[in-house]
Amino acid sequence: MSPRTLHLNAFLMGVGHHEAAWRHPRTDPALITDVRHYRRLAEIAERGRLDSVFFADGLALQGDVRHNALGTPEPLTLLAALAAVTEHIGLIATVSTTYNEPFHVARKFASLDHISGGRAGWNIVTSAGEAEAHNFGIERPAHAARYQRATEFLDVVTKLWDSWEDDAVLRDRNGGRYADSGKIHAIRHAGDHFGVTGPLNISRSPQGHPLLVQAGSSQDGIEFAARHAEAVFTAQQTLEDGQEFYADLKGRLARYGRRPEQVVVLPGISPIIGSTEREALRLEKELEDLIIPAYGLAQLSQMTGIHLGEDDLDGPLPDVGVETEGAQSRRRLVVELARREGLTVRQLLGRLAGGRGHRVVAGTPEQIADQIQLWFENGAADGFNIMPPILPDGLADFVDHVVPELQVRGLFRTEYTGRTLRENYGLDRPASRFAATSGERHDLVVAS
Amino acid sequence: MSPRTLHLNAFLMGVGHHEAAWRHPRTDPALITDVRHYRRLAEIAERGRLDSVFFADGLALQGDVRHNALGTPEPLTLLAALAAVTEHIGLIATVSTTYNEPFHVARKFASLDHISGGRAGWNIVTSAGEAEAHNFGIERPAHAARYQRATEFLDVVTKLWDSWEDDAVLRDRNGGRYADSGKIHAIRHAGDHFGVTGPLNISRSPQGHPLLVQAGSSQDGIEFAARHAEAVFTAQQTLEDGQEFYADLKGRLARYGRRPEQVVVLPGISPIIGSTEREALRLEKELEDLIIPAYGLAQLSQMTGIHLGEDDLDGPLPDVGVETEGAQSRRRLVVELARREGLTVRQLLGRLAGGRGHRVVAGTPEQIADQIQLWFENGAADGFNIMPPILPDGLADFVDHVVPELQVRGLFRTEYTGRTLRENYGLDRPASRFAATSGERHDLVVAS
Ligand SMILES: Cc1cc2nc3c(=O)[nH]c(=O)nc-3n(C[C@H](O)[C@H](O)[C@H](O)COP(=O)(O)O)c2cc1C
Ligand SMILES: Cc1cc2nc3c(=O)[nH]c(=O)nc-3n(C[C@H](O)[C@H](O)[C@H](O)COP(=O)(O)O)c2cc1C
Repeated sequence: MSPRTLHLNAFLMGVGHHEAAWRHPRTDPALITDVRHYRRLAEIAERGRLDSVFFADGLALQGDVRHNALGTPEPLTLLAALAAVTEHIGLIATVSTTYNEPFHVARKFASLDHISGGRAGWNIVTSAGEAEAHNFGIERPAHAARYQRATEFLDVVTKLWDSWEDDAVLRDRNGGRYADSGKIHAIRHAGDHFGVTGPLNISRSPQGHPLLVQAGSSQDGIEFAARHAEAVFTAQQTLEDGQEFYADLKGRLARYGRRPEQVVVLPGISPIIGSTEREALRLEKELEDLIIPAYGLAQLSQMTGIHLGEDDLDGPLPDVGVETEGAQSRRRLVVELARREGLTVRQLLGRLAGGRGHRVVAGTPEQIADQIQLWFENGAADGFNIMPPILPDGLADFVDHVVPELQVRGLFRTEYTGRTLRENYGLDRPASRFAATSGERHDLVVAS
Repeated sequence: MSPRTLHLNAFLMGVGHHEAAWRHPRTDPALITDVRHYRRLAEIAERGRLDSVFFADGLALQGDVRHNALGTPEPLTLLAALAAVTEHIGLIATVSTTYNEPFHVARKFASLDHISGGRAGWNIVTSAGEAEAHNFGIERPAHAARYQRATEFLDVVTKLWDSWEDDAVLRDRNGGRYADSGKIHAIRHAGDHFGVTGPLNISRSPQGHPLLVQAGSSQDGIEFAARHAEAVFTAQQTLEDGQEFYADLKGRLARYGRRPEQVVVLPGISPIIGSTEREALRLEKELEDLIIPAYGLAQLSQMTGIHLGEDDLDGPLPDVGVETEGAQSRRRLVVELARREGLTVRQLLGRLAGGRGHRVVAGTPEQIADQIQLWFENGAADGFNIMPPILPDGLADFVDHVVPELQVRGLFRTEYTGRTLRENYGLDRPASRFAATSGERHDLVVAS
């Protein structure tokens, strides 16, 4: 068996993950809607042999736009553009199951998978924000209801992806037979949330199923991940929390007949890189000095449902509890961080400014690599979700200085060995569920 | 004033518009999901200085996949990929108002408009097919109801596009002010079909509004076009029908305070090109010989709701009437064509095979140019929707032989003069409706 190696995903966000990145002299906030910026980022990631790039998403203008460069393009649109100008890098888009229809989502990801030659991935989210619901004429459904809908949604989407068997397309020009309709199946789904006859209107895509990624760490979220996800993004502040999450998730897989290596766990890390430790700390300090407290308060409110004002900045975090119908795991993380370290609200906002709850590590390339190796070799990670504080520079620094260090240590690939996102992550291509029962029962009724 | 010049849109569809194109030796049906094929088509269109490329769309596997190369990528995804590798050509995607949410649609087109530097266009359709409804858990809404929803849908989408004024983004790094929230407006739409608070989560796009295109020619459809559309695709078989449609549509504009030159009328034409007339007719005959009647019958059924069998092929079209809850204008066109020319069903299918009801013209480049000029100069067209029978060859032949002929006649541009799709079509950029009433009433409430 080949030695276990790291997986690295570049989490791309505007001009950087630090909330003050747009104010830093090394960024240009005019680039947040410019495809050339994202193309450059994808090319840097590909130069570093990373597994994939990823865009988060929300369906409302969330956060305080007065004080941050918000309003980036819709991820699927942007990744389709990047598909045309890259070759190896995986393309992971966030799409909500709460405010979409499974037919559209199945089709768009199958299209992206075709267009990219098998590099599409879907970060499945249930949309924790209240403002999102108000752009779709409803109130935010309860947390449990969102995950129930997500489960049925996944069922429909994967059936649609399977609805054309791999060998359904014949292309028999002389015989006039384009496809074997016995291998294209109506799915006839009729459930609590969706009624979808199918089949999909595009053939089975190179990966069979675009890669399924998940990013919610509540109890419902972890259970959903154990059942469906092939890669999991998570925010973990300490090695112990990371180990606990990792063991918890991997331990739940057997229940669904899955093996531990079928799910790749990727905690977030925001690396603040300097050629010396002092240089790294200087960059961290420069960013910290650009923070606007009003923005952090709005962000805290939107992300965790904890609503505070400027008067609260120098006191401790009030005892607000961890329950919420919003993003449960993020609220828990924030409350526990403040308690554990006895932070004032202002200090807490400083800690969240770098990565919204993800771990921030400032140091030399070697120090960053040490942290990555530590988690990777001690049961806390199969790889990392890399969240550069400033873009493109932070990604270029990671690729040019940390990646070579990881390669020297034998922890990371030096060349791509496959062509698909699944191959990058070492994950199998699923068979169509209809392939075995072909013919009779499910076959498509075509008008004749 | 500059002389009136033609507008040309390349209507791209798989390996060609002729239903037997996939069987012809000059095509390769394996390309229908290959982004390189579409890239090549876009590059050819751009080489010919065409205004735009366009993809139609349906939300179900419609037609008989046993006998045609169906299953092309979702248009917005595909056009986003083409945005990254083209510079001037407009990118028009079909999206249904019946099975979508306005927030998603507004956002995706604004994203495509940003990514392409102002080249996005939306072909607004109401989805006439019954199978489409069944992929969204409902029965097909009635024709009038679909257009009512479309009207409210447009209202919401354009409000969202206007929700950020053009000068809302400040990017004041020193002052820490990214945007002026007084120029970003909640839209607070509460209507019969939609409740959308807004604002959009992306800034106003280069064109202000991506170009609005429309393609239904029923009474409801024409009225909708008169009110909203800036370009109109239409299927017209004869010069007289074309003139009547043109006059009808242009005549309705005043009612909405619009001028005739604010809407570009583009009838479809499928040019079968040969260097001699005989060569053109030979290509037409080759394609005709590859037709599969079962496919034409399924297509007729799907497109017009007229359900016939192989036994009906050699009789006249039964008296089925023109009423339908499906695509009214297409049904009318087909029934009238059969009656006017006294066609058998088989002959009718032959006539529809080339362009599904659009006009097919076989001839030399000069003959094709003559037809284009005739309609253009006689009140039937402002330009054409070019539907090559086979792709890429049919488009290359048009660009390399018909376009130069049109240029020599002074009817078509020899260079692009603008950068946006609106500039290609000579249409103004709309102002944000909120720009005048700025401030107080509509301003965004940001958490503080
Ligand atoms: C790395 C990472 C990325 C995420 N990206 C998104 C996102 O783009 N959109 C979103 O709505 N939620 C995102 N989430 C949040 C979750 O997916 C989920 O929607 C939210 O946390 C609520 O789930 P929970 O209550 O299970 O934690 C992300 C979480 C993580 C760890
Ligand atoms: C050139 C052209 C392209 C069209 N493309 C589409 C399409 O992609 N999807 C669609 O549902 N209808 C399409 N239509 C049909 C109409 O937009 C409309 O949905 C249908 O004809 C019903 O409208 P009507 O009853 O007003 O004719 C197209 C029509 C024309 C003339």
